[in-house]
Amino acid sequence: MKIVVLKFGGTSVGSVQKIKKVANIIGNYVKKKYKVIVVSSAMSGVTNELVNKSRSISRNFSESEYDVLVSSGEQVACSLIAGQLLNLGFKSRSWLAWQIPILTEGKYKNSRIQKINKNKILNYLKSGGIPVVTGFQGVNSENRLTTIGRGGSDASAIMFAKFFNADKCIIYTDVEGVFTTDPNKLKKAKKIKIISYEEMLEMASLGAKVMQPVSIQDARLNRIDIEVKSSFIKKTGTLITKRSNIFKNKIITGISSTQNDAKVTLVGVKDRPGVAASIFKPLSKNSINVDMVVQNISANGKETDLTFTIKNEDLNKTKKILFKNKEINFRNLIFNKGVSKISIIGVGMITTPGVTFRMFQALAKKNINIQVISTSEIKISVLIDKRNVKKALRVLHTEFKLDK
Amino acid sequence: MKIVVLKFGGTSVGSVQKIKKVANIIGNYVKKKYKVIVVSSAMSGVTNELVNKSRSISRNFSESEYDVLVSSGEQVACSLIAGQLLNLGFKSRSWLAWQIPILTEGKYKNSRIQKINKNKILNYLKSGGIPVVTGFQGVNSENRLTTIGRGGSDASAIMFAKFFNADKCIIYTDVEGVFTTDPNKLKKAKKIKIISYEEMLEMASLGAKVMQPVSIQDARLNRIDIEVKSSFIKKTGTLITKRSNIFKNKIITGISSTQNDAKVTLVGVKDRPGVAASIFKPLSKNSINVDMVVQNISANGKETDLTFTIKNEDLNKTKKILFKNKEINFRNLIFNKGVSKISIIGVGMITTPGVTFRMFQALAKKNINIQVISTSEIKISVLIDKRNVKKALRVLHTEFKLDK
Repeated sequence: MKIVVLKFGGTSVGSVQKIKKVANIIGNYVKKKYKVIVVSSAMSGVTNELVNKSRSISRNFSESEYDVLVSSGEQVACSLIAGQLLNLGFKSRSWLAWQIPILTEGKYKNSRIQKINKNKILNYLKSGGIPVVTGFQGVNSENRLTTIGRGGSDASAIMFAKFFNADKCIIYTDVEGVFTTDPNKLKKAKKIKIISYEEMLEMASLGAKVMQPVSIQDARLNRIDIEVKSSFIKKTGTLITKRSNIFKNKIITGISSTQNDAKVTLVGVKDRPGVAASIFKPLSKNSINVDMVVQNISANGKETDLTFTIKNEDLNKTKKILFKNKEINFRNLIFNKGVSKISIIGVGMITTPGVTFRMFQALAKKNINIQVISTSEIKISVLIDKRNVKKALRVLHTEFKLDK
Repeated sequence: MKIVVLKFGGTSVGSVQKIKKVANIIGNYVKKKYKVIVVSSAMSGVTNELVNKSRSISRNFSESEYDVLVSSGEQVACSLIAGQLLNLGFKSRSWLAWQIPILTEGKYKNSRIQKINKNKILNYLKSGGIPVVTGFQGVNSENRLTTIGRGGSDASAIMFAKFFNADKCIIYTDVEGVFTTDPNKLKKAKKIKIISYEEMLEMASLGAKVMQPVSIQDARLNRIDIEVKSSFIKKTGTLITKRSNIFKNKIITGISSTQNDAKVTLVGVKDRPGVAASIFKPLSKNSINVDMVVQNISANGKETDLTFTIKNEDLNKTKKILFKNKEINFRNLIFNKGVSKISIIGVGMITTPGVTFRMFQALAKKNINIQVISTSEIKISVLIDKRNVKKALRVLHTEFKLDK
């Protein structure tokens, strides 16, 4: 059987009209002799509406009942999709998580799919049916509804692709695919045709909103090819796959940039073991996400400067914690809300020397000062003045031949 | 175990604020040492919204998917109620039809509850929990969701009362109970404290909107006492029970009246066997509900007049059918859209002679002409001019001592 998993996001099924379009997309795969498993999210807006209801009951609304509440959204979307497929003359039905069942483990609101029972769906596929499966949910060992915390319906789709050994897993969404950089910031951004899991992971972690990192990681671990494409525009999307499938690597695959970052420098920190921990522990406890961290070599062996970046909205909270906590010693605190992180991402840089140099030189030529640097195997990030973001994106996009 | 089944209708759970009130009502029964089974409808408006979605997909939307679609509404309401009960410190959880399971038979959109599996709910009750059960739905032998066509969540509540041998089944709704007559038409209408199943069945069939006849019949067959009361106002409601529980019968328990009735008379119908069938068969086929039917004795042995009542909105359709159908012979068709049916209902009339006479005399005294008469064991209905409805209700309400 040539199985394809088609996943539709909330905006793709956001109205009855859109659901009719989605049914046509599904029908086209059936006509191409694919056995199709459809995984759907709730109609856009519905989940938020339900969450708001739970909040008006209580800020501490029961987590198990929360899962019962919000999982009703996918049930609605799936019945409407199956209804329209029947309408078009296809054999189809909704399959709710408990009917399959999709077994999950972990806590309510934050479960993971452990196993998908294949029998019923396999028989249904063999009989020529199109199963329309509720994403984002499952049942636990107590036969109660659970929702999948991270990755949501994308994670469901990837697990279906894994358990049914699907040829393809296609994530239909409201964007055309993954771009070399944010098209809102740089008009000449290009859609990426093929990208490795690792690069996609970096892109996602850095703010490309196409998929959540946890879903990409799931796909990577299970070696499942994912195509991300638009449910509104008929165009090839972006294929996310393993590196060995990518023959013609560009050095750099994409460039990301952040907004609303703040840089904090603690001047005159005592240079002794445990100092960094004493600073970051209270921040972490207060759910403040610290991104780049740089510590200079101590000039006099006694004191050093420590710089890190956080989200702008966390700045006041951070300052309070640092000043209040008596264990943290520093002479001065300097902060700057006007910074942005630019990252170039590409597996090509592993085998290509001089990428760092080329990046720095390109920025220098445009008079863009680099404040902080941080690197990984397939990524180089620099912190620059926020006002230079567009200029930096433009020069780097050209430097690394992403313009075409 | 002293078990009580509490059923809440759509308006009773129509908002988060109302759900909070409902949780307080439930809590009060728990404090009185009752084991409570809660059965809930969907929040008012939700089911209609879902039905509209299915209609925008197709006028012939799949019946099995329709059931998946609309049954999500009760899931939402139950999770919110259970969430609020947890919030108040009670042990509670939602129980979805498939988790119990509630087994149904019959067609989609129109199933009946066949069996409720008691084990899980009983254990949960014994552990001190308050189960909040989705009304209006079940699962069939194929493990698919079904909805209960007639009686809806009321029927669910009554079946729970039956299977769990409950002490009480209380239907919480948006009215205070059953009234001697419609309080909108007669201000001095009184709430009935106790009424027999049979009287209630007649009242319901005649338009008292408190409960559907099919649910009352279920309760009657299973000898389950039902109390109908308001979830908004703290007052005793109406107890629906078997006749032998009612000690002080009034002759008449209630008076009902219809609106928007039309009277049709076929003049000069051939007086031979099969004539009535030939007239009513095509009407029934076209879902036209014929209410009162009167046929006079043929004066000349050849021809007779046939009179029946229908809803005003069916009049044009009815005329078309009667004129088009060649099997139906009549000389003339007379119709009158300005009629209303007044019925007096009471088991007391079985043992009290002269009720019919008293009714006719009371109307005659007020110069109200009776056009058609139809009687059953516990009911007398007359057709009168619509303009006389209020006057008739007033005089009969006084005549049969319902004013106090």
